[in-house]
Amino acid sequence: MSKYDSIRQAALEANLKLPELGLVIFTFGNVSVCDRKLGAFAIKPSGVHYSELEADMMVIVDIDGNTIEGELRPSSDTLTHAYLYKSWSEIGAIVHTHSTHATAWAQAQRDIPILGTTHADHVAGNIPCALPMSPEMVKGNYELETGKQITQCFTDRKLDYRQVEMMLVGSHAPFCWGKDSAKAIYNAAILEEIARMATLTLQINPAAPPLSNALVKKHYTRKHGPDAYYGQ
Amino acid sequence: MSKYDSIRQAALEANLKLPELGLVIFTFGNVSVCDRKLGAFAIKPSGVHYSELEADMMVIVDIDGNTIEGELRPSSDTLTHAYLYKSWSEIGAIVHTHSTHATAWAQAQRDIPILGTTHADHVAGNIPCALPMSPEMVKGNYELETGKQITQCFTDRKLDYRQVEMMLVGSHAPFCWGKDSAKAIYNAAILEEIARMATLTLQINPAAPPLSNALVKKHYTRKHGPDAYYGQ
Amino acid sequence: MSKYDSIRQAALEANLKLPELGLVIFTFGNVSVCDRKLGAFAIKPSGVHYSELEADMMVIVDIDGNTIEGELRPSSDTLTHAYLYKSWSEIGAIVHTHSTHATAWAQAQRDIPILGTTHADHVAGNIPCALPMSPEMVKGNYELETGKQITQCFTDRKLDYRQVEMMLVGSHAPFCWGKDSAKAIYNAAILEEIARMATLTLQINPAAPPLSNALVKKHYTRKHGPDAYYGQ
Amino acid sequence: MSKYDSIRQAALEANLKLPELGLVIFTFGNVSVCDRKLGAFAIKPSGVHYSELEADMMVIVDIDGNTIEGELRPSSDTLTHAYLYKSWSEIGAIVHTHSTHATAWAQAQRDIPILGTTHADHVAGNIPCALPMSPEMVKGNYELETGKQITQCFTDRKLDYRQVEMMLVGSHAPFCWGKDSAKAIYNAAILEEIARMATLTLQINPAAPPLSNALVKKHYTRKHGPDAYYGQ
Repeated sequence: MSKYDSIRQAALEANLKLPELGLVIFTFGNVSVCDRKLGAFAIKPSGVHYSELEADMMVIVDIDGNTIEGELRPSSDTLTHAYLYKSWSEIGAIVHTHSTHATAWAQAQRDIPILGTTHADHVAGNIPCALPMSPEMVKGNYELETGKQITQCFTDRKLDYRQVEMMLVGSHAPFCWGKDSAKAIYNAAILEEIARMATLTLQINPAAPPLSNALVKKHYTRKHGPDAYYGQ
Repeated sequence: MSKYDSIRQAALEANLKLPELGLVIFTFGNVSVCDRKLGAFAIKPSGVHYSELEADMMVIVDIDGNTIEGELRPSSDTLTHAYLYKSWSEIGAIVHTHSTHATAWAQAQRDIPILGTTHADHVAGNIPCALPMSPEMVKGNYELETGKQITQCFTDRKLDYRQVEMMLVGSHAPFCWGKDSAKAIYNAAILEEIARMATLTLQINPAAPPLSNALVKKHYTRKHGPDAYYGQ
Repeated sequence: MSKYDSIRQAALEANLKLPELGLVIFTFGNVSVCDRKLGAFAIKPSGVHYSELEADMMVIVDIDGNTIEGELRPSSDTLTHAYLYKSWSEIGAIVHTHSTHATAWAQAQRDIPILGTTHADHVAGNIPCALPMSPEMVKGNYELETGKQITQCFTDRKLDYRQVEMMLVGSHAPFCWGKDSAKAIYNAAILEEIARMATLTLQINPAAPPLSNALVKKHYTRKHGPDAYYGQ
Repeated sequence: MSKYDSIRQAALEANLKLPELGLVIFTFGNVSVCDRKLGAFAIKPSGVHYSELEADMMVIVDIDGNTIEGELRPSSDTLTHAYLYKSWSEIGAIVHTHSTHATAWAQAQRDIPILGTTHADHVAGNIPCALPMSPEMVKGNYELETGKQITQCFTDRKLDYRQVEMMLVGSHAPFCWGKDSAKAIYNAAILEEIARMATLTLQINPAAPPLSNALVKKHYTRKHGPDAYYGQ
């Protein structure tokens, strides 16, 4: 028994969702789940296949990125997770994948434009694509700098991480988060579908215009905020 | 026992078909089934996952959109369904999804051109894409106005909803219907496949011409109307 | 017991392969199997779902297209099958589908160019796309005329149906055949994959050149003719 | 019992992975596994379906391409495998497929450009596409010459087969390898995914730039070489 058992179990289940939802092959993604009271998160061990994961393999890491418990090495992206938890106090889980369509947009170094209501149901603007990291950042503490690149992008664009829970790091791949692991995983799957629809839309009509402000606001507020009337 | 049990069961089964046919992820679609004699329809509750649906969760709504029976909140699109049932007396079921390829055409704001016999077997012309809704309609009673946008499109284009049982709302997604839930669901799946084929066709040959009038008429009347000779 | 039981069973099994191989949805295809000694073929009944098919539902039709045995109406494409069996004495089975990628090429009204060895392993030249049928042919005995359009295309292009066992009818969809049902079904699946690869190839390089004559000949003769050395 | 039982079993299991990973249909690929001490490799028999394979059907071939044990004819590509084993002393398994997206790049006769970190995690540069084979090579000992085309491409480009474990033969299809069958199969699946992402990336942004040298180096050395810190 450990006080971390709950987040270990949650992290296990969330990681197993990635292949189930078609978001990863082999070891192409990792999920972490944070317990704010304990100031720690559980994260997938590096390079272990989803089919072999067990709850006690999850590594417990503190908010500064130091391993607290666990015999395995944590995901090589651990410092990115830690930096995001430290910077953004209201997120409870982070998902990083290389899902095909979202990664293609990251490699194309383009924001995913808001082209329809499916997108506006989840995010009230373009999905931001941060610039690829500079050689200086890459040569430094790379994974920590990745976290800074993400938060800097949100600062520069005046975005609120509680409203926009998904983004792309240019040349790399998507990062998503949420108040808990269910929401973060949901966001990763939604991002992949939005990315796929956007590619097809621009194939059919390269001049497809962005969604009108009225529709953006309507669809976003149907599902979010004090006037939401979607769901139970 | 309730006089609505039959449409509750039919609506349950039809909603479960959506993920089975690959037309939705998460809660991206809803089906309603109408009993014209009772003047009411059963519709999916808002935001509930397909895997958790049970017949008694279906909400019974009258043709003006008022809930008659049911403990859950009905789909947020309920007033669109109600308006269509009220306007078009011969439809018995409605399907709304955000299926990938059809939604991409809606986002591209283009009619799906009739490019082959697969299309003509089901619809004898382009699949109409209504204009995106105006800010005034969006800010008003949005879901009711969506119904009006759909019927107005059919009126403007002199289309018969009994012959064209599928369409796109620009910037949004597809709506399909039929005399019963089996036909409405069938139409939703056919529309997705027609949309996918059309995208590929124009990729291979951007100048692909529309199907000849002779082939449109032949294929449509093989399956529809007094001279049909397809099926048993 | 009937002398047609053998082809009924073969036709049942071959039709069931279509959904299994992802070549059809709903009732989008039909297979027939011919017994040359009996001068008859067994074909799928019109409009019946694959999941409901049983051997005794297969309809027995003679080479002129007359039903010999069977309580159900045969496929609406029956006269096309009959005409091909009558014209081409060495084919034992015919497959007609609306498989997605092959149908897109038919709708694009383009031959599928020979772009690689995968294609040359099966056909030593482009996959022909016949012109869409003329209004006169469509208004006549349509399904019979479809058979004529197919054989005329082969005559005009000096193709041998024993070497090229797959083709597209412009604006419509693919037809494949072979000495038996296993080969005809195989051809239908191969055509779909060749079509998909060709679309992607031209997307990556619109100027991709055709395969060299040397490679066409080498790969085709590795698998076909007296010098074949592929397989057991 | 035979001293070759171990590689027979390994080759069986590796070949069965091809359809499981979606890399082949029908008989579109073959894997061989080499025992360097015995100077021999086990390879799939030609034209046999994966579902019918058993360990004792694997054919044992020496490094010059001569069959040592086995009642079936080995893969028609056997001399290509033999030539690679002979030329490159540190590879333990070879995988040849016609997987869809990688084959499309081969048919397009283009190197797969390095567009993102997913690619750099596995190969630190473009995936090379060798020129299509010349008519002289095709008319000679074709399969042996295919091996030469592959190694010549690596020599010309100054590539190390221990660092770049995957490539395309122009107009044909991919070849992958590795120290053992698990790595070779992994490479074949990774190549297919990298190829798919690259096609989508260039669709979204035809001017997508190559990954920066800093990111190439960082991601490659995270997983390979003395400073690797990925995995356990």
